[in-house]
Amino acid sequence: MSKTLVISLDAMGGDHGPSVVVGGVADYLKAHPDSDLRFLVHGDAAAIEAQVRAHRLPADRIDVRHTDKVVAMDEKPAQALRRGKGSSLWNAIESVKSGEAAAIVSAGNTGALMAISKLQLRMAAPGLERPAIVASWPTLRGITAVLDVGANIDCDAAQLIEFAIMGEAFQTAVHGTKRPTIGLLNVGSEDMKGHEQVREAHRLLRSGAFDLDYHGFVEGDDIAKGTVDVIVTDGFTGNVALKTAEGTARFISALLKEALMSGLPSRFGAMMALPALKKMRNRIDPNAINGGPLLGLNGIVVKSHGGASAYGFGNAIRVAGDLARSDYMTKVSANLKRMTTVLEEDDAGSASGTGVETAQ
Amino acid sequence: MSKTLVISLDAMGGDHGPSVVVGGVADYLKAHPDSDLRFLVHGDAAAIEAQVRAHRLPADRIDVRHTDKVVAMDEKPAQALRRGKGSSLWNAIESVKSGEAAAIVSAGNTGALMAISKLQLRMAAPGLERPAIVASWPTLRGITAVLDVGANIDCDAAQLIEFAIMGEAFQTAVHGTKRPTIGLLNVGSEDMKGHEQVREAHRLLRSGAFDLDYHGFVEGDDIAKGTVDVIVTDGFTGNVALKTAEGTARFISALLKEALMSGLPSRFGAMMALPALKKMRNRIDPNAINGGPLLGLNGIVVKSHGGASAYGFGNAIRVAGDLARSDYMTKVSANLKRMTTVLEEDDAGSASGTGVETAQ
Repeated sequence: MSKTLVISLDAMGGDHGPSVVVGGVADYLKAHPDSDLRFLVHGDAAAIEAQVRAHRLPADRIDVRHTDKVVAMDEKPAQALRRGKGSSLWNAIESVKSGEAAAIVSAGNTGALMAISKLQLRMAAPGLERPAIVASWPTLRGITAVLDVGANIDCDAAQLIEFAIMGEAFQTAVHGTKRPTIGLLNVGSEDMKGHEQVREAHRLLRSGAFDLDYHGFVEGDDIAKGTVDVIVTDGFTGNVALKTAEGTARFISALLKEALMSGLPSRFGAMMALPALKKMRNRIDPNAINGGPLLGLNGIVVKSHGGASAYGFGNAIRVAGDLARSDYMTKVSANLKRMTTVLEEDDAGSASGTGVETAQ
Repeated sequence: MSKTLVISLDAMGGDHGPSVVVGGVADYLKAHPDSDLRFLVHGDAAAIEAQVRAHRLPADRIDVRHTDKVVAMDEKPAQALRRGKGSSLWNAIESVKSGEAAAIVSAGNTGALMAISKLQLRMAAPGLERPAIVASWPTLRGITAVLDVGANIDCDAAQLIEFAIMGEAFQTAVHGTKRPTIGLLNVGSEDMKGHEQVREAHRLLRSGAFDLDYHGFVEGDDIAKGTVDVIVTDGFTGNVALKTAEGTARFISALLKEALMSGLPSRFGAMMALPALKKMRNRIDPNAINGGPLLGLNGIVVKSHGGASAYGFGNAIRVAGDLARSDYMTKVSANLKRMTTVLEEDDAGSASGTGVETAQ
């Protein structure tokens, strides 16, 4: 049914370089024995080939592209743009631009990945300023996509609607949700709550002009409840929410560990419950949901966490493959075009005194 | 050493009314047998007196002030302002205005409490627009004060600095921290990160003009780590962070419960570890840290969670008593005055090309 897809990998990014990247390919192929993905692996050829041999990977699935040059994890985006040409990150992205690969995965420097991707692939719509980063958030009811979690600090209503469009398509392509429901993150559920940008986006989304299943405002505690499938917010709020949740999870884990290590009966009890506790930990393991795409580019770019394990990197490959295989790109670009028309009509309507909301 | 303090209580607010409010007084007096606090209790006299008898409270500590009128939990602030006169909430605040009481505690409608407090007590500085709500956040290193968690949606740099001043004084008065460290919530730690308001506040706080122990930018995961004693943010971000953390805690508790109930060995293990797990739960019990003051008013106003238990309401009384007993009010008003001068000088300096940061 499907032609062979090629995924481009930056082997030198992240805390562990080729061992995790090639290890991730091995993990992915083991978990998906029917997959026909092939890989272009950019970086130090000797190091990559050593890993390919160690994992006994089939030679016809891996194409190694040597370069000595590397973008450092702490390099500033502007620096990476000036000096990054020919690096493993740069070349990995170029493989998508040239059409050789359908997607690229990197565990490297986020700012550099974003800047070089934007330069080479360009944004998919004129209104988009920077790619949005989406997080797959484990909830009581499955996985919710939350975006933006850090790229766009100040967002106007049009950007928030773009996030809704891209997040919806992502949720369907990667998490298989048929008709995702969408919520706008706010400090209350009434129409007059929140700042101007979020109220304006609410008005437009509620108008029904975008063919999205818009649920309305949601609050911080709705994220983990799984109230909706996609949560839209500006990159400042999204980043704080994501890191606050991570911090809370670590805090409670620390308290739990302390409680279970306090005294003999607790230790014994913990031992009895260990298999169940491990299963629970796996459900909130960041590696299980690793792979945050940069949405809004003309091309599929997936960021792996810098500290991800091979299992985690394998999951980021899975995300890239799912996006590349789906109709995500065509769906998003059609909906973004449609959005531009709706917003222009709304502007014209507002000027003559008939806003979109009165037309429904 | 200290004169008797009077705390004014709105007996009709919250989900449980007089049973929790009077029960809270009983709980407080039991936990603080040396306290000499006295209470003005506003609301339905028959219901209040029945509770006073049920808890066998000493008659000389309780002064009941009858009113039939109540502000409903779902009343809009504007409505409450128009129609609230003579209600238990209104009268309880009036007791602070008249000087009869040193502080007021209510578990009622937050918007109404804020609006009526502002009208009657007024803000402590001309630059302050709305009171800030502070949350006492349990962390790995104790309690961190986070503000604003919901009142002020858009905040400029001056407001963020006001929060720093008020949060510092609160942390010392209520949690006993000698010289609290202060962090500004952001999406990264470098100077150029974040939006304009947060960068401008950072520049001013770093200048050293405010006599605060300013640590710099912190991120979402620093909250539960306890990296600093006071975390300053706008009410939108703070509210989302607080509710996201609550949601995450509930999510993990649900997973934990599920894990410990799955199969006989886990159940048995959970039974063995139960006392330790209960101790852990108490550490993150919202009732243990109940009592969020509205900061920035000419008077001490403490909001109890609407669903708090008597134990929780007793803790809110403790917060009100600690604030009233401390030099919180004089310290804040002196520092706010000083702030106005610094900001004026900074403006003048900026105009002539020499900002505060070059003067240090």
